[in-house]
Amino acid sequence: MTDRELAALVARIAPADRAACEAARTALDAKTKPRGSLGRLEELACRIAGIRGFPIELLDVTAVLAAADHGVAVSGVSAYPPAVTRQMLHNLAGGGAAAAVLARAVGAELVIVDAGVDSDDELENIRRLGITRGTRDMTAGPALTRAEALAAVAAGIGLVGELDADVVTLAELGIGNTTAAAALAAAFLGVDPSAVCGRGTGIDDEGVARKCAAVEQALEINRPDPADPVGVLAAIGGLELAFLAGVVLGAAAERRVVVLDGFVTGAAALTAARLAPAAVEAMVAAHLSPEPGHRLVLAELGLEPLLDLGLRLGEGTGALLAVPLLRAAVAVLAEMATFEEAGVTDAGG
Amino acid sequence: MTDRELAALVARIAPADRAACEAARTALDAKTKPRGSLGRLEELACRIAGIRGFPIELLDVTAVLAAADHGVAVSGVSAYPPAVTRQMLHNLAGGGAAAAVLARAVGAELVIVDAGVDSDDELENIRRLGITRGTRDMTAGPALTRAEALAAVAAGIGLVGELDADVVTLAELGIGNTTAAAALAAAFLGVDPSAVCGRGTGIDDEGVARKCAAVEQALEINRPDPADPVGVLAAIGGLELAFLAGVVLGAAAERRVVVLDGFVTGAAALTAARLAPAAVEAMVAAHLSPEPGHRLVLAELGLEPLLDLGLRLGEGTGALLAVPLLRAAVAVLAEMATFEEAGVTDAGG
Repeated sequence: MTDRELAALVARIAPADRAACEAARTALDAKTKPRGSLGRLEELACRIAGIRGFPIELLDVTAVLAAADHGVAVSGVSAYPPAVTRQMLHNLAGGGAAAAVLARAVGAELVIVDAGVDSDDELENIRRLGITRGTRDMTAGPALTRAEALAAVAAGIGLVGELDADVVTLAELGIGNTTAAAALAAAFLGVDPSAVCGRGTGIDDEGVARKCAAVEQALEINRPDPADPVGVLAAIGGLELAFLAGVVLGAAAERRVVVLDGFVTGAAALTAARLAPAAVEAMVAAHLSPEPGHRLVLAELGLEPLLDLGLRLGEGTGALLAVPLLRAAVAVLAEMATFEEAGVTDAGG
Repeated sequence: MTDRELAALVARIAPADRAACEAARTALDAKTKPRGSLGRLEELACRIAGIRGFPIELLDVTAVLAAADHGVAVSGVSAYPPAVTRQMLHNLAGGGAAAAVLARAVGAELVIVDAGVDSDDELENIRRLGITRGTRDMTAGPALTRAEALAAVAAGIGLVGELDADVVTLAELGIGNTTAAAALAAAFLGVDPSAVCGRGTGIDDEGVARKCAAVEQALEINRPDPADPVGVLAAIGGLELAFLAGVVLGAAAERRVVVLDGFVTGAAALTAARLAPAAVEAMVAAHLSPEPGHRLVLAELGLEPLLDLGLRLGEGTGALLAVPLLRAAVAVLAEMATFEEAGVTDAGG
């Protein structure tokens, strides 16, 4: 994919359908309940209608999990060694990882993508992009070439076209990837690295200090230009981050609902939003993680999280836990009786 | 049921099984994720194990919805006329009410109980207690006799014995019942009625003032003794409130998980907790409603809500929306691989 082809895709991304939103609002107000009494579930139903159209009855959900390795992981920024990315990919393939368990629990299909894991393993139910086996160390130079970053974005866009899903939930895995996400957030938000570097998998204060220093150095040495999101992705991003940014763009272009997970998917979504601001209207924020940068990213995107359960595992677990709320919102819209149908006295208001 | 029989049931209610909690904690710490990284989902898994035992694999869920009318509803405390309780009971029976839609959406069985609706209708899928057709006006004297209150509590206890459910979610319906709930909360918490009287179905400021005045007068005329919870229920409660207090006691005695909904079910649970403090350990708070008294009731019970979505519909909708979180917590406990099983390097911590 060239920058020009990407620009053409971005130009296709349109805002939500206001008429469908309004139709959903009107339908909800006729249902047998005090107006607005289902709170954020009603907002969610309207938002989904604005993306998918109205009426809407059922939601097919696919979780897209992208895994990759990070050169910066050698800098002691994670509680786990880099080899864990590959080990966890096997665990996902075997169905024992949290994302696999929760996808089954909520009835979502799970698509696992090796976007750049440092491994040659061919796993039966995992798609392998084969661009690189992880990023180069961003504290010493660009993590990816522009062509590599574009290839990962293009793969994300392409995957969405193959999915038969109303809703795509984002998921990631990659030792070191909260450091890359922090670098992206710092670059796009123009904040100090200390505002977006958290404990990730569970590092101590010294680990956080190393992480801040790594982000600072990566920004210093690469000087990414926030007005060029693909350039930022290449300089300080990651293959799963670029791929997921592509998934967001592809989903927004095809009017699928995109459910964000935690800080890492948030950084990917922010990158997509810098390329295509209207893509935000296809997004739903599933939860708020304890990573300090997550709140800042969601605020920048103008999204309010549905859940706040202290989740910091990643793998799309928070996004999956929000899926039943999306299904419930659509069920209310599709299945509840109106005051008229049920012969219930409407107090209006 | 006599007071003595109730005391015998209450004496059977035991605290959570600490050993099962600990076993669940140990099992969770061996799973392929950073320790504690599933946040409140892990706490929930441990809590469920403490009630149901460990190991635990699947959760059968039944929603128990109790409906009743309230004499106080003539005082202009609701946006809807009293006849709506009966109309909504028909809507529930027909499957078009929010509780019916959400029960289907989350895979819960719905048991509907007419605990004292002002109607002679016999509906096929609704159990009718037949104690009274609603309470008397508590602003003029006791809402129920002690015998009526005890009969409703006993019916709630009895229902639980018939259910084949690991989890019981609480649900209520009754025009005027946030006023009765406010009276119970004010009596048990010793707070001013203004601290617990909210907008209910959507009344304006004048309606809230009428509601506060009604609660004040009910407390003044009945002078309920908070040390006698059954006496409080009789004086200023309601048939669905007494029935649900019985459901909580019965469920706690049989070690079922009890999921609270909003302010009304919270008031019923608080009543049960005053009879049997250990019953609190069987409870899970599903959500926080905008009713001002709900936060106070949950704080008194020491429960932290899972969801905060601005839900103020009642009918157990918030409790039903939390059901997928309970199922997810159990799935994590039952299905995730351990570091050892998956061959993943454990960073400990």
